[in-house]
Amino acid sequence: MIRIDRRALLAAWAALPLMGCAVAGDGGPADPLPSWNGGPAKTAIVEFVEAVTTEGGVNYVPPDARIATFDNDGTLWAEQPIYFQFAFALDRIKALAPQHPEWQDTQPFKAVLEGDPKALAASGEEGLLEIIAATHAGMTTDEFSATVADWLATARHPRFDRPYTELVYQPMLELLAYLRESGFKTFIVSGGGVEFMRVFAERVYGIPPEQVVGSSGVVRLETGPDGRPVLMKEGKVEFVDDGPGKPVGINRFIGRRPVMAFGNSDGDLQMLQWTTAGDGPRLGLIVHHTDAEREWAYDRDSHVGKLDQALDQADADGWTVVDMKNDWKTIFPAAPR
Amino acid sequence: MIRIDRRALLAAWAALPLMGCAVAGDGGPADPLPSWNGGPAKTAIVEFVEAVTTEGGVNYVPPDARIATFDNDGTLWAEQPIYFQFAFALDRIKALAPQHPEWQDTQPFKAVLEGDPKALAASGEEGLLEIIAATHAGMTTDEFSATVADWLATARHPRFDRPYTELVYQPMLELLAYLRESGFKTFIVSGGGVEFMRVFAERVYGIPPEQVVGSSGVVRLETGPDGRPVLMKEGKVEFVDDGPGKPVGINRFIGRRPVMAFGNSDGDLQMLQWTTAGDGPRLGLIVHHTDAEREWAYDRDSHVGKLDQALDQADADGWTVVDMKNDWKTIFPAAPR
Repeated sequence: MIRIDRRALLAAWAALPLMGCAVAGDGGPADPLPSWNGGPAKTAIVEFVEAVTTEGGVNYVPPDARIATFDNDGTLWAEQPIYFQFAFALDRIKALAPQHPEWQDTQPFKAVLEGDPKALAASGEEGLLEIIAATHAGMTTDEFSATVADWLATARHPRFDRPYTELVYQPMLELLAYLRESGFKTFIVSGGGVEFMRVFAERVYGIPPEQVVGSSGVVRLETGPDGRPVLMKEGKVEFVDDGPGKPVGINRFIGRRPVMAFGNSDGDLQMLQWTTAGDGPRLGLIVHHTDAEREWAYDRDSHVGKLDQALDQADADGWTVVDMKNDWKTIFPAAPR
Repeated sequence: MIRIDRRALLAAWAALPLMGCAVAGDGGPADPLPSWNGGPAKTAIVEFVEAVTTEGGVNYVPPDARIATFDNDGTLWAEQPIYFQFAFALDRIKALAPQHPEWQDTQPFKAVLEGDPKALAASGEEGLLEIIAATHAGMTTDEFSATVADWLATARHPRFDRPYTELVYQPMLELLAYLRESGFKTFIVSGGGVEFMRVFAERVYGIPPEQVVGSSGVVRLETGPDGRPVLMKEGKVEFVDDGPGKPVGINRFIGRRPVMAFGNSDGDLQMLQWTTAGDGPRLGLIVHHTDAEREWAYDRDSHVGKLDQALDQADADGWTVVDMKNDWKTIFPAAPR
């Protein structure tokens, strides 16, 4: 026979909201990660969060030090068949082409307009930078944001025929919410453009603009035609928030070392190293794309989101690796976002 | 005779904490700015905050858009007789001199070691950059933070014989707290070094590292002697968060336009222009140093914190100007911080 101390039960009940747990209809604490199957990844996350939030425990981390950083492409939303921001740039080239008749005969623009991936690839990094400059510069920051917002509202992903902002990972949305309920401040630390991501990060991920760290171009203060100040985007790269740039970006924008870091590719290797090299409890996690049916399967040889060295180091250093196919019940949210 | 509806009174009482008001012993709402004398500056602040936080009002600003930016030197803490960070650099030169015998005969170091302000001034901006490089680079970010913390714990201001972190403005501390209680996110946007300010901003101002925007030097990821990654500070300027750099820094680090901005010098002019040029309610405020007795009196001809063009524009554009002598009951906090 089990004896129940009713007063202790009531006290435990009363404490539940303070512990950041939702309460399910049956009286037990709700699963904070319902789209995650039980398994080592989910267990590692939940046990870590419980350890760092248990006051008096050896692994307790005070709320103001609870910093969690997330890569974006391939970690919070999909990145195939091409980075979504690159899809935006290609669509912008097509939209701007009537104002640039010279693009019909100039690479890399000709390749974009003719849909010639081989010629586009042949233009290399220089071609890529030209496309970025033509679509991300020569306008004010406000004009750029409006262009991104328009594109997100109308463009659809070629495979799933859904807006790109619906191709975010439902299990990661739950993880973001769970961490925030547990007192974490959640940041994006991505190789993607900071001004691109800020347009949707708050609405889609609940991450405000000031918690988005990304790559950026030079911006200059000018006086607009109405005499008011404007910020003009120039076609010059200022900061690449990828690979060794991620710890630098974390230091520059956040100013303290994360307790948890989440990535999916070799571009996240140094962020994970930097995070887990800190003293005290640290969690590094890699999303491994293993589900060709519901999403994509790729790692060591992929042209985007290549995961090779970081996969080896995850193994060597005990980082958590999410097996998308087995660990995630659902991939994308059902309801429109 | 005044009739009092007791139920309405009770309801008003119950709502008070939700409105971010402390409750004083006599039953009325406590003054959120007790160190401010009544007058146009205090009235402008309180009326603005009430307007933007009144739901349903024409000037209502939702909480996630309530961004307030503060300059640091001369706005949150004093900046005379020299910028406090420069005092730190001079003290570091003296502390490091035994390891640099060559400094005895090399300017600008010789001038620092001999206490020769004329020779120091003659070394110009190049000399200043050499002093900054010698004291702010060639070490890891963690080592630098430890050096700053040590200095703040021991150094004392020449005039007031108090630690520098006690020379913060009590009325501004109250203003920071009042804004945060009113749902504002408070940021520092300063020409000072970001890694210098982050050491004390949370303890002294309640502003966490990720809400401090400042000037910075280049930082590079390296592998430390124990095989762990470290961030090395290099002697190269990366970003100057002053003058036209302030709107650029706000865009880069915060990603949205402030609703309120606070400064004290021409270095804050563009931040105030950028802030007040936004649509909807905006408040620009300048702290005018008018109190030679309790602090300092300086403006158009000062070698630090020169306030000339911004004072003219404050007048033209209706920015609030704080007259330190008349608007502030106390300048510095009484209790050690």
